[in-house]
Amino acid sequence: MSDAEKPRRERRAPAGAAVLQKDVTLAIQAAVFTELAKHGYGRLSIEAVARRAGVGKTAIYRRWSSKLQMVVEVVSAAAVKVMPVPDTGTLSGDIRELLDAGAQAMRHPLASQIVPDLLAEAARNPDIAETLESTLRETQQGISAVMIANAVERGDLPPDTDVELALDMVFGPLYWRVAVTRSPVSEDYLDDLAEGATAALIGAHAPEERSAG
Amino acid sequence: MSDAEKPRRERRAPAGAAVLQKDVTLAIQAAVFTELAKHGYGRLSIEAVARRAGVGKTAIYRRWSSKLQMVVEVVSAAAVKVMPVPDTGTLSGDIRELLDAGAQAMRHPLASQIVPDLLAEAARNPDIAETLESTLRETQQGISAVMIANAVERGDLPPDTDVELALDMVFGPLYWRVAVTRSPVSEDYLDDLAEGATAALIGAHAPEERSAG
Repeated sequence: MSDAEKPRRERRAPAGAAVLQKDVTLAIQAAVFTELAKHGYGRLSIEAVARRAGVGKTAIYRRWSSKLQMVVEVVSAAAVKVMPVPDTGTLSGDIRELLDAGAQAMRHPLASQIVPDLLAEAARNPDIAETLESTLRETQQGISAVMIANAVERGDLPPDTDVELALDMVFGPLYWRVAVTRSPVSEDYLDDLAEGATAALIGAHAPEERSAG
Repeated sequence: MSDAEKPRRERRAPAGAAVLQKDVTLAIQAAVFTELAKHGYGRLSIEAVARRAGVGKTAIYRRWSSKLQMVVEVVSAAAVKVMPVPDTGTLSGDIRELLDAGAQAMRHPLASQIVPDLLAEAARNPDIAETLESTLRETQQGISAVMIANAVERGDLPPDTDVELALDMVFGPLYWRVAVTRSPVSEDYLDDLAEGATAALIGAHAPEERSAG
């Protein structure tokens, strides 16, 4: 199959990249997910991704400079698409919506295999760790910055609210439950967690004003 | 090296097991950690563990029926030893102490390599998933049950407090930060997290009594 591509510029194209054809990109992205879920990061090959996508290896290297860059960008682009920036009008409503989207994303069979795999690789490979780290942090901060800014504007949270801590308190318990202890996540559980996380965000920033527990 | 062993019974010995020599068990445990950190669960072999521990394979099979059982029991026994059952006299003090121990355990180079590895294996192998799941849940519930019971007795929490949610709110954010987003964990961060988790535990169980956010 030819790698010739129509003039369309990708948002995430590397500097100096040629114009890229969108349906080729989509085919490669789908192939990355399938290969990752089947074989894990360590045994994933650019060749197999190209074969499954029905493209030449050049089509892949035109988009990403390495296997690592390809995997991290494809996975994180999907994660960003799945995660809405919630805007329900209340902090607890926003948190509940984020938890819902997060629970769906984490339960997805592809995500539930791929993410633990990348984290295991990251423990041995500082390049993967660094790339994952900055990607996750940017995504997480992008979502939470809007949610927290809205809550601050409504007066639900003080202006000095720690955005990072906020999302740690929302996604952490969910991830721990879904991916680590692998316990069931019911709607009731998500309701309780949303209430807890809301209370945590308010409580974490008022320790000085209250007498110690 | 001989597998002959002195009469001493292990707490976790399988039913019907012969009496087991403690220093052999310790040597095997240390070897399991080193081999896991070096090669990961998938490529760990009983042979290599036996060789490193300076014992015969029989010594291993006398203690554990499989590689999976060996790894999960050795890792979780170490986790239990590291995690204190806190008893500081206040809920926020107990949570702060747990977070401290948890942060130390998660930052340990062995743990930070081994746990992601086991979770990645668990995503592909239901046996590992089930064993990890029940071990983690038991450990977690053992610690939190005492902490929550103490808090209930002092009147800090209502008697119907959800023990599982409680530990999800304590360990989840910490794990997310240390192992997933791989962000720094300062003493200040742990202080804020302890305050947040304390507020969460109190807030998660009083949603009906308060007007919606």
